[in-house]
Amino acid sequence: MSKLVGSVREAVQAVGLTDGMTISFHHHLRNGDYVLNMVLAEIAGMGLKDLNVNASSIFDVHEPIIEHIKKKVVTGLEVNYMGGKVGRAISEGILEKPVIFRSHGGRAGDMDRGAAKVDVAFIAAPCADDMGNMSGKYGPSACGSLGYAFSDAMCAKKVVVITDHLVPYPLLDCSIPEGYVDVVVQVDKIGDASRIVSGTTKITRDPVGLRIAYLASQVVKHSGYLKDGFSFQTGAGGASLAVAKYVEEMMEKEGIKGSFCMGGITGYLVSMMEKGYFETILDVQCFDLAAIASIRDNKNHQEISATRYASPAAKSCAVDSLDVVILGATQVDTDFNVNVHTDSNGYIMGGSGGHCDTAKGAKLAIVVAPLIRARLPLIVDQVLCKSTPGETIDVIVTQRGIAVNPKNQKLKEALIAAHLPVKDIRELKRMAEEIAGVPKAVTCTGRVVANVLYRDGTLMDTIRKKA
Amino acid sequence: MSKLVGSVREAVQAVGLTDGMTISFHHHLRNGDYVLNMVLAEIAGMGLKDLNVNASSIFDVHEPIIEHIKKKVVTGLEVNYMGGKVGRAISEGILEKPVIFRSHGGRAGDMDRGAAKVDVAFIAAPCADDMGNMSGKYGPSACGSLGYAFSDAMCAKKVVVITDHLVPYPLLDCSIPEGYVDVVVQVDKIGDASRIVSGTTKITRDPVGLRIAYLASQVVKHSGYLKDGFSFQTGAGGASLAVAKYVEEMMEKEGIKGSFCMGGITGYLVSMMEKGYFETILDVQCFDLAAIASIRDNKNHQEISATRYASPAAKSCAVDSLDVVILGATQVDTDFNVNVHTDSNGYIMGGSGGHCDTAKGAKLAIVVAPLIRARLPLIVDQVLCKSTPGETIDVIVTQRGIAVNPKNQKLKEALIAAHLPVKDIRELKRMAEEIAGVPKAVTCTGRVVANVLYRDGTLMDTIRKKA
Repeated sequence: MSKLVGSVREAVQAVGLTDGMTISFHHHLRNGDYVLNMVLAEIAGMGLKDLNVNASSIFDVHEPIIEHIKKKVVTGLEVNYMGGKVGRAISEGILEKPVIFRSHGGRAGDMDRGAAKVDVAFIAAPCADDMGNMSGKYGPSACGSLGYAFSDAMCAKKVVVITDHLVPYPLLDCSIPEGYVDVVVQVDKIGDASRIVSGTTKITRDPVGLRIAYLASQVVKHSGYLKDGFSFQTGAGGASLAVAKYVEEMMEKEGIKGSFCMGGITGYLVSMMEKGYFETILDVQCFDLAAIASIRDNKNHQEISATRYASPAAKSCAVDSLDVVILGATQVDTDFNVNVHTDSNGYIMGGSGGHCDTAKGAKLAIVVAPLIRARLPLIVDQVLCKSTPGETIDVIVTQRGIAVNPKNQKLKEALIAAHLPVKDIRELKRMAEEIAGVPKAVTCTGRVVANVLYRDGTLMDTIRKKA
Repeated sequence: MSKLVGSVREAVQAVGLTDGMTISFHHHLRNGDYVLNMVLAEIAGMGLKDLNVNASSIFDVHEPIIEHIKKKVVTGLEVNYMGGKVGRAISEGILEKPVIFRSHGGRAGDMDRGAAKVDVAFIAAPCADDMGNMSGKYGPSACGSLGYAFSDAMCAKKVVVITDHLVPYPLLDCSIPEGYVDVVVQVDKIGDASRIVSGTTKITRDPVGLRIAYLASQVVKHSGYLKDGFSFQTGAGGASLAVAKYVEEMMEKEGIKGSFCMGGITGYLVSMMEKGYFETILDVQCFDLAAIASIRDNKNHQEISATRYASPAAKSCAVDSLDVVILGATQVDTDFNVNVHTDSNGYIMGGSGGHCDTAKGAKLAIVVAPLIRARLPLIVDQVLCKSTPGETIDVIVTQRGIAVNPKNQKLKEALIAAHLPVKDIRELKRMAEEIAGVPKAVTCTGRVVANVLYRDGTLMDTIRKKA
């Protein structure tokens, strides 16, 4: 008995894929992923049409999907994040049906409670046995955590595992077990290792980024959360890592032992755990090789599913216990609403990922961003897309000042008492406009090309067609 | 935010338990379990009635349930195994509604597909944090694997975690995550450590047991399955361990490297893995302290859920890939049907556990048992309860001879060629009767006190009331 079939085509046939079905993909192979393109090419070659693709994220490597959309092979798209290449095409209106944007937690939640149905999940597995036990930790295309793929495996009617590293049964150190899997396919390569993760992630050297990071760390310090048991999430970008560095320095100085860190995991966070600043890492996604080595070798570095990370449909999730999260933004408005879906011109080039999940869960949600980017002010009267509601954001940190959400008066007072440059958010907006000028109003009045769902599944905003 | 409540009573209230509901328990604390009794006492004290109890197993320690049944606090019972004390009371008819017996795989499968619904699962957790992340590997009442509790956590509408070892959030090395948990209660003790597991499990010294074990190992040897990649399950009893010892000797002599072993895990199987005879242990339940230490410390010793172990509702499970299983029996009939539910007088004193699951899955299912026990022959015309269908049993091994299922002609020829004492099963029956006499026919003609479901949920047999 074995679930192995000879090719992707045989797998597609074995699971009975037909026109109009929903298929899903995870994004742990990031910009090195071969699997989404490989499967869609095969499906197109078989003459199938009208598929709905639920991919946890779409990167620039997935550009071929544009042709599949134009040819009506793909007629629906659901994502948590979408890179600029495909995003621009969507903004220009190539897809008739609006894209559905969810958050990482929202996608898991919608799958878990049956609101987002998947007929066939195609799971890129860096390592698997012929019955479908799989892991992301081993093999030439190792990506570490398979966090986002758990919902796909557990909720899809049929599950196809695609691997380039088949091992004898039973796979040691299994992440997702065989009981969810229908078919296993071995292919030459599921991805380009050099693009799946970066070799190392580095702290920014940009003085503006460092200034923002320093101020953010001061907000953390004076928030009252930086004490034993402290939990923390930050991104993998250079400025986010700089926040981690400053936080580490404070933890060292004050002898603070944190509990967990989370998010896209990098070597920097791994080293903080190894030095004892955090007890454990809860890892839904690895961003570099050090993180992959750590999740493989260090028992305190735990793989978690997207459900455990952030699902609002679960009875609780890790973001509910998070103290502090550091987040980014392309736009923030004077009500503290954050846009991470579009650029300042309204073109899709991102998505929530875990943004609105962690903002909602964390006790302190800090947005860090330069006050001006590409000559455009960060802060606007109204964001072009509301990705994360302002009421879940506590602080905006720019290099020129810190705006505290008025709901958070105590924190504001603490930051003022600490002589931090606290400003009204309208003042920050004015400062940016003094330097960069008042930007020309961007209005998007075309038909709706994307619906942005909040993590609980309700419609939060829409994105409209460009020119 | 915390899910901690102050007492079992508060937990029962918090989850809204009412008359007529189904509550569930797992049996990893075995005869040392305090939790089932503690919860039922509280429920009885609160005046609740008419509860249906789905307990993966009932041991003698759970004798107080007899009073709860008599007082109609408990009016339904579903189990995979039931020890002799409660079994006798059931056989005598204390419960109006027939008990439902399932197998370990069948229970997980019925829960997973919604055929066995649970309103509230009470999970004894040797270690947990205040959000409900739990593990069996740590704490004063450590039991190792929590394999049977996964379905309860994942399928029950409400989940209460009861622990005597509360740790800071987030629990390191979590087995069952918080997303399934509603309420956490800390109590003084969830069990009597000395009865949860034995200190060590020992190989039998009984010459009859050793003879049977030796013959069983010879069957394994000549079956053709003892080669690289070999997988094996045996029980924790002294005779079963003796089979493991003989198998190990053969593996050593012939330089064979097995793949996995499974079942109730003992130090003996752990040592076989450590010596390299098996790559990995798939552990749904630990039987001794060495097994607990190993599942905690050795990454190749993997905890698996009952679903992954044996669920027929999953797309595959580990028993489907099992080569050889060694099983016990209280009775075998001439059609190779096996009884492990009742003694030879028809009193309930056991249950399938994983018996029928592994018999169905394994390529070679060997039953080992003494030809005569308590002066009664093992082999009868018709078992008092069909626990495992004869068509899934390959061989019966007794000290006086080996009976091969006629469906398995090639194996029979191989064993004869190896000069093993192969006999027709009727001949074995006659041999026993020559020694012990023909036993008085036992007939149970009372009303049905238990329905025995096969692993797929269909009714396989009934057990009737004794005098």
